[in-house]
Amino acid sequence: MSTTETYRYRTVEKHVQSMIQNGAISLGDKLPSLRMLSTKLGVSISTVNQAYIELERKGVIESRPRSGFFVRQRSMRLPRTETSATPMEQPRPVTRSGLIQTVLESVGNYDTLELGVVTPGVDLLPLKELSKITASVIRDNPRQALGYAPIPGDPNLIHQIAFRSMENGISVAPDEPIITAGCVEALNLAVRAICRRGDTVLIQAPTYYCFLQLLETLGLRAIEIPSDPKGGVSPEGLAHALKTFDVSACILAPNFNNPDSSLTPEDTKQEVVSMLAKQNIPLVEDDVSTDLHFTPKRPGTYKQYDKKGLVLLCSSFSKTIAPGYRVGWLLPGKFRDKIMELKATTNVSTPAPTQLAIAEYLRQGRMERHLKRLRESLEKQMDTMQLHLERYFPKGTRVTHPMGGAVLWLELPHAVDSVELFFQARERGIGIAPGPVFSTQDKFSNYIRLSCGSPWSDALNNGIKDLGKMAGDLA
Amino acid sequence: MSTTETYRYRTVEKHVQSMIQNGAISLGDKLPSLRMLSTKLGVSISTVNQAYIELERKGVIESRPRSGFFVRQRSMRLPRTETSATPMEQPRPVTRSGLIQTVLESVGNYDTLELGVVTPGVDLLPLKELSKITASVIRDNPRQALGYAPIPGDPNLIHQIAFRSMENGISVAPDEPIITAGCVEALNLAVRAICRRGDTVLIQAPTYYCFLQLLETLGLRAIEIPSDPKGGVSPEGLAHALKTFDVSACILAPNFNNPDSSLTPEDTKQEVVSMLAKQNIPLVEDDVSTDLHFTPKRPGTYKQYDKKGLVLLCSSFSKTIAPGYRVGWLLPGKFRDKIMELKATTNVSTPAPTQLAIAEYLRQGRMERHLKRLRESLEKQMDTMQLHLERYFPKGTRVTHPMGGAVLWLELPHAVDSVELFFQARERGIGIAPGPVFSTQDKFSNYIRLSCGSPWSDALNNGIKDLGKMAGDLA
Repeated sequence: MSTTETYRYRTVEKHVQSMIQNGAISLGDKLPSLRMLSTKLGVSISTVNQAYIELERKGVIESRPRSGFFVRQRSMRLPRTETSATPMEQPRPVTRSGLIQTVLESVGNYDTLELGVVTPGVDLLPLKELSKITASVIRDNPRQALGYAPIPGDPNLIHQIAFRSMENGISVAPDEPIITAGCVEALNLAVRAICRRGDTVLIQAPTYYCFLQLLETLGLRAIEIPSDPKGGVSPEGLAHALKTFDVSACILAPNFNNPDSSLTPEDTKQEVVSMLAKQNIPLVEDDVSTDLHFTPKRPGTYKQYDKKGLVLLCSSFSKTIAPGYRVGWLLPGKFRDKIMELKATTNVSTPAPTQLAIAEYLRQGRMERHLKRLRESLEKQMDTMQLHLERYFPKGTRVTHPMGGAVLWLELPHAVDSVELFFQARERGIGIAPGPVFSTQDKFSNYIRLSCGSPWSDALNNGIKDLGKMAGDLA
Repeated sequence: MSTTETYRYRTVEKHVQSMIQNGAISLGDKLPSLRMLSTKLGVSISTVNQAYIELERKGVIESRPRSGFFVRQRSMRLPRTETSATPMEQPRPVTRSGLIQTVLESVGNYDTLELGVVTPGVDLLPLKELSKITASVIRDNPRQALGYAPIPGDPNLIHQIAFRSMENGISVAPDEPIITAGCVEALNLAVRAICRRGDTVLIQAPTYYCFLQLLETLGLRAIEIPSDPKGGVSPEGLAHALKTFDVSACILAPNFNNPDSSLTPEDTKQEVVSMLAKQNIPLVEDDVSTDLHFTPKRPGTYKQYDKKGLVLLCSSFSKTIAPGYRVGWLLPGKFRDKIMELKATTNVSTPAPTQLAIAEYLRQGRMERHLKRLRESLEKQMDTMQLHLERYFPKGTRVTHPMGGAVLWLELPHAVDSVELFFQARERGIGIAPGPVFSTQDKFSNYIRLSCGSPWSDALNNGIKDLGKMAGDLA
């Protein structure tokens, strides 16, 4: 098959997937006939057929003899939004560090089956390519590599990032980005720039535990608004919270929220930005997962709807090319001066060699090809993982169907204590992230997050089997 | 001359220099005769003679016909300690950022004659050696280089640093050090671990401006105790401040304080540590310049006298091998857990490739040879700079005679406004650091700090000549 043809049937495939995701076709519905879709999309019937076969292979659709293709009813349903019976009555000091620390102890520990840490498996990273480039830029530019980078970062890298942001629909000045040591540092600087001890910050629930740690160490209080695996953050929940509390800032993930992988619809993003703009409340946006979209188009960001410079977009290359390089960035909006001051007193500037290497990697135009491969692998790995969850996990388990990212969020039968499961799994060398680390409240006690970063293997198969058995025993 | 002989006469030279520095011999005094010193030190008369000739060449001593050798009366005297007429009556909020930011804008700007930034000139760094090592560790260990390092850092680097610390007389556990992105990050984490907004922190005056920026961004208040170019921090000043104020922490540089290069005597260090221990006040120690000692032995640290885990020692390789690699460390004493939590929420962990490279550089045993060369170059550069200051600067200028580090601290005639001088110099492409950035008070308005990081050159000669002329015109 020619590359053009491959590209065509993949486009059709993505089109169908996004119709399912949008709700344009529901689970169990019949798909358009081959002829109808071929006319609509202006491709050949055989291309549509190829796409349907591929979707069937992935378990997304199924053919029924003499009836055509149907969206497959997955046996596992989506996890439910865990809304408290009563909404939060007051902001809470954050005190999750103990448990989170225990979970994080596995970072950088290569001995276990690591389903608890969200990074693409090392084999999906451009190991040789990037190492070669790094080696050569350092040898060719020893002065720049050994000397301080300017506080905001290497100018070439800054321009590359500004350019990529513009391509993604964000209007930034060519020198607006500030390079940070990873996305977590961008978030740290952003929150420190806009909040003071005791302030109240809106977050979504569930949310990335690193936000909770950050709020705790900075002495901030949290208000949680429910995030739904389907639609992301709820605008009503946000409106209610803004009316009720004196909110200093928001931290939200627009796309593939860690852990529930929710994808916030574009109109919700726009609505959220305009609600916050009315009250001049800054929004810290965690954009780190967006590049891992399985959707045909890159989903939008809050930043692109921002007209007042109130959105601080944080991102990095940690989930795409090199976690250990710690190269991230911040689009600081109107807070640039304050961020520069904080960056200078945090560590002067980001290390030079890794910045030079990534700038060169981008300059050589290697990123898009790599991302394409990476997304395909992650999507496939997620599919495989889901099939095995269906096989091995107890009845009543629910799981997300992410359209991007690298994690699955599981709701286990109510009786399962996920912290207990975490400790049992750790005993057997399996790392998972238990639900309660993703909220300040006593929520998600029967939820777990599993990473799908690594290609399927016998070890993974056995690990998931073990884990399913343990969950079954606890249920 | 054999290497052993070179080593012998340099030892004698250092011995004489430290006698001068200690005050055992004063300026203008006669030096011991060749015979006397040769007997005392157990070396040959010709070795002592060689050392005296070398010291004369450097302008430290002078021979007088038929009288012997004398400590040269330098025409420029030491800057005076600037004690306020009235001691500080209350802790001050720190508000120096504007001016400091202006000074710092030159970081990473290679266009100017950079006398304002304290790093060894790029040509003194092990450019080729380290670049080669970096290239090869990354290619040989792509998985480790691209993956996350553990939160406290690469285990090999941690062990190397623990080992070096023990060699320097500090008792640390092999896994106590935490790797940070440079010394500034170590300081940032240390201060955040022990202080809360509004707390009062003791600093020395003059002090490194980055401390002031840090205090300002963290909303801390400062009490300054005078630092003397000869003896460093004053124990009486410290005792007085501790009695008068509710102090949460101290930040002190034990050796070659930036900018006055003061070397705190060992008994003062011991006294300071024990005074603070009585009140359980943590001490953040900036040890970043100590490896640049010109004294025969590495001076001690506060940390080595610490019995209660109250001293947090901060250091880095930025002033010795690679500023842009941003690899530093923290010996956190009893605050390790808190520091780990802060590190995790600041940027997860320090970039892996630079850690691997420096660990390998140390493992290959290259550090000591490099440091030896580096110290010799810096000492020579300082000598040369001092000679030229005498030639070009207006009468009444005073300058430090550092026993280590890479900066000179100049007291200019009273009429000179150093901020004005800074702006005039910048117009001509010369970067300097004006006195007022080194204090929270309106002090040091006629002081400047000059970096001696770069080997002498025509450009430097012309720059210093220009600068002297400008200072003369302002005087």
